[in-house]
Amino acid sequence: MAGTPPRSPLAPEQFPNLPRISGVSFSSVAAGVKYQGRTDVMLAKIAPGSSVAGVFTKSSTRAAPVLDCQEKIGIDSDTGAAIIVNSGNANAFTGKNGIEATKAVTSAVATALDLPESRVFSSSTGVIGEPLAHDRITAKIAELKASLDETAIKPAAEAIRTTDTFAKGAGAEIDVNGKTVSIAGIAKGSGMIAPDMATMLVYIFTDAKIARADLQTMVSELNEVTFNSITVDSDTSTSDSLMIAATGTSDVDVTHNSDFETALHSVMKDLSLQVVRDGEGATKLIEIQVTGALNDADARTHGLAIANSPLVKTAIAGEDPNWGRVVMAIGKSGAHADRDLLSIRFGDILVADKGWVSPDYREDDGAAYMKNAQLEISVDLGLGSGKSTVWTCDLTHGYISINADYRS
Amino acid sequence: MAGTPPRSPLAPEQFPNLPRISGVSFSSVAAGVKYQGRTDVMLAKIAPGSSVAGVFTKSSTRAAPVLDCQEKIGIDSDTGAAIIVNSGNANAFTGKNGIEATKAVTSAVATALDLPESRVFSSSTGVIGEPLAHDRITAKIAELKASLDETAIKPAAEAIRTTDTFAKGAGAEIDVNGKTVSIAGIAKGSGMIAPDMATMLVYIFTDAKIARADLQTMVSELNEVTFNSITVDSDTSTSDSLMIAATGTSDVDVTHNSDFETALHSVMKDLSLQVVRDGEGATKLIEIQVTGALNDADARTHGLAIANSPLVKTAIAGEDPNWGRVVMAIGKSGAHADRDLLSIRFGDILVADKGWVSPDYREDDGAAYMKNAQLEISVDLGLGSGKSTVWTCDLTHGYISINADYRS
Repeated sequence: MAGTPPRSPLAPEQFPNLPRISGVSFSSVAAGVKYQGRTDVMLAKIAPGSSVAGVFTKSSTRAAPVLDCQEKIGIDSDTGAAIIVNSGNANAFTGKNGIEATKAVTSAVATALDLPESRVFSSSTGVIGEPLAHDRITAKIAELKASLDETAIKPAAEAIRTTDTFAKGAGAEIDVNGKTVSIAGIAKGSGMIAPDMATMLVYIFTDAKIARADLQTMVSELNEVTFNSITVDSDTSTSDSLMIAATGTSDVDVTHNSDFETALHSVMKDLSLQVVRDGEGATKLIEIQVTGALNDADARTHGLAIANSPLVKTAIAGEDPNWGRVVMAIGKSGAHADRDLLSIRFGDILVADKGWVSPDYREDDGAAYMKNAQLEISVDLGLGSGKSTVWTCDLTHGYISINADYRS
Repeated sequence: MAGTPPRSPLAPEQFPNLPRISGVSFSSVAAGVKYQGRTDVMLAKIAPGSSVAGVFTKSSTRAAPVLDCQEKIGIDSDTGAAIIVNSGNANAFTGKNGIEATKAVTSAVATALDLPESRVFSSSTGVIGEPLAHDRITAKIAELKASLDETAIKPAAEAIRTTDTFAKGAGAEIDVNGKTVSIAGIAKGSGMIAPDMATMLVYIFTDAKIARADLQTMVSELNEVTFNSITVDSDTSTSDSLMIAATGTSDVDVTHNSDFETALHSVMKDLSLQVVRDGEGATKLIEIQVTGALNDADARTHGLAIANSPLVKTAIAGEDPNWGRVVMAIGKSGAHADRDLLSIRFGDILVADKGWVSPDYREDDGAAYMKNAQLEISVDLGLGSGKSTVWTCDLTHGYISINADYRS
């Protein structure tokens, strides 16, 4: 790979100040799994009494650590937990050796932190199909343990990057009956997903008190409208993982608490949009709102067809208000649509109205709108009340350069 | 649009010598529908007694001429027929005016050639959402009629091009009981589909004798393994059309004749691969063979997932033997796969065997193979006997340049 891509033009100004989560401490280290001259392993230690929940890739070729996490995630336990993550190697498509490598890492962490192995979760992100040098990770466990620190979440976010051009974090604090509940999350990801490099990993921590099963339900629902509603290139990783740990140390029960759910939603949405903002080669962040579909599933199908269309994405890269390609994407999606009821807006500009170009639409207005770095495309199908919102980025020469040249 | 893209590096040396089909004559003309300085309308006149069949896009936003053809294609008739095609404007997403424009063109042809309007088929390809200047076409009908010629199929292939970098033709001649049966076909298309420019249109003519319903069955089946098995960018046109006319003038009945079916298959496969060879920005032609799937449908789903993956296509553009991305595409396809039974070959090179990199595989061998302009990727799932073959091209900077800059 020819150097690191430049920082995304859509990147936030800086990494946010995240609240400290009592009961969760972080450390990171340069283990030399693959990368040199940077950190590549992070450890998060989670206090006894915490609830841990997560969602994982649906790929049928998922990586060994994903399979391991899925076996462990549904267990109720009060013993505390740990999450260890390496970048540089995905430990995917590595057969039996992959499972052994995962076990070597998680059992070493379990021993060091005096946890049952069933409470040590792991993720690996990087190149696929190469054996994971797990001894390089286990050799650093003592160092990781020694440097655990509740304030060290930003270095943790940096250690899990692969081709990410910026470290991703988001947080929230809410007041519940005079007590403060905090949420802090980190993520990595730079394509909706590429097994070599852009696997999406997300770790969120809160001091809220909530039972594991309730936390799992909440995070699964919010995942559908955040991380499961973004796409960079329609490719799905073998390693996507999102985990959340609630320590309960705030002593505030947030079961069915809508303020907490709203705050968690905002953190997850912020992190998911940071992944899109760091989409490979991205120069535009695009929100696609579909309304008037027969049902929500149809709306989502249309939205993803638009968001994944190479022709829509290249038109946006070229700042071309090419609404015909939006029509094409709706037509090919397979979900129900009636050409003569279809309306399309770019921002507030009505482009197409009931099956034909709007009489008031001027190409100059559309072209001017497309110059923005953040765009909204709204489609109304005129059929029902189904709706969905998805986010994506444009498809540029930068994407080709990053992906055609990466491994060579 | 900044000039015409250069001729595809995958283009055939020259347009083939196609057999003359007795009973079918062609003409073409520069009507100035949109393009200047080139022909843009072609007419094919088909003798009485011919059978006509066709297959069309499944898009829910299909263009007016497609809807018109679909109404007419299932009718048995002995009166003869005509096909008129314009490039430069797709007459798609043009509402009621689009239907009126199609009627204006087809009724003018019907009057000029003394045919019932129900026997005049039309296609339009080019920009979407702009009214079709049908008067420019109808003004040229007399000229088109006057120049009809059985040998003029090559100029017809040239007139229907949009951003195609070469005119596409293929033919075959077979001997049936001492008599010759001929097939000649032309096509245009330069993406599996782009509504602005790369709509796929195919017209095939033969002097074979076969009833309309039998011809329709044969062409529908062959379409699945030819034009429905290619993809450039996963985008589906509003205008895709394939029509075939059998004049019967050879006096050879080919109903259920396997030699004829084989010959027609070869013509359709040749034309479909010419569309891939002219894929926007293409530098590699890729055949993807999936075997060992639970069933043929699963094999096809996996094949298309690989063929449409931007990460697979960019890796090939970069001549990177990145088999991990093939694993990823199989994993995301949604069809059944077992990671630990999966084998992958690049050409004859066994890359991955039963869930891990093959012990004999050397990256240098893979890298050397990827330098070829034509590539075969074979995947065996080890689950059953389902199989499928699909064809695609790579995803290059050329695709981005053509599609990001086309309409501006």
